[in-house]
Amino acid sequence: MGMIREIAEYHNLLDEVTINSQVLRADGFGGDPFYQCLVAELAPEQEDKQGRLIGYVLFFFGYSVNTGRIVYLENLYVVSEFRGRGIGKKLLSEMAKAVLARGCSEMKFTVAAWNSQALAWYRHLGAQDKTEASDWHCFELGAEALRRLAGDGR
Amino acid sequence: MGMIREIAEYHNLLDEVTINSQVLRADGFGGDPFYQCLVAELAPEQEDKQGRLIGYVLFFFGYSVNTGRIVYLENLYVVSEFRGRGIGKKLLSEMAKAVLARGCSEMKFTVAAWNSQALAWYRHLGAQDKTEASDWHCFELGAEALRRLAGDGR
Repeated sequence: MGMIREIAEYHNLLDEVTINSQVLRADGFGGDPFYQCLVAELAPEQEDKQGRLIGYVLFFFGYSVNTGRIVYLENLYVVSEFRGRGIGKKLLSEMAKAVLARGCSEMKFTVAAWNSQALAWYRHLGAQDKTEASDWHCFELGAEALRRLAGDGR
Repeated sequence: MGMIREIAEYHNLLDEVTINSQVLRADGFGGDPFYQCLVAELAPEQEDKQGRLIGYVLFFFGYSVNTGRIVYLENLYVVSEFRGRGIGKKLLSEMAKAVLARGCSEMKFTVAAWNSQALAWYRHLGAQDKTEASDWHCFELGAEALRRLAGDGR
């Protein structure tokens, strides 16, 4: 939860965080998970008892009607003092192994253009910027509009 | 499958379609579905035996670390001769009911900017263009890059 607040702060989205640890636990680790998560932690010997969490990658499975099974990368985060050591890439690499094993052939994700470091890094890994290449736009429809839509069908 | 080829043709993506009906069936209607689907069909009395499929909405569940459960709209399609009768909106409305019942508070999706009719329609429904508003970019990382990433972790 601490890391989620850190990343929201980085994106200047702290006001939009409505989630809490109970909900995160139930939605990711219940019988019908809405997301998958891999974490990086310090080896236990480097800390008192259990390894300290220093990063995570959060993703979910999805579908493309063109290519089939895909994965959507929601979030990749490494605590700032541990950056530059390949931890983010290692997290992505483990995720790639897991999703290839599930038959996914593509990873989709969204990057804010001001985050030029992230843009450059993902391009370096071989990602294509579909907004730049084909003018794709990312859209969001919030809860109020969803409820209005649901009501229209009555 | 016919409609999937139609929509791919509309988006000039026919070359990218690698999927077939067996795969679609297994991935959507097996024990561990990668997508959800609602279809529109003509009432049986208007056709010979079973209702003809005239549209579909394909979506999958996902997660936002800010707001929790979300739905990702992959595809909404209505066969051209049946457009303009509110079928697309009815499909979206039924989807909205289903995903609100599952606790989703947001719908995310991607629209190609040349598709100005779709852009206008989604805006009219209350959707926000995050590419325009906050310069978000849509990214894709293909199978080859995923395999390279997976290999890097060995």
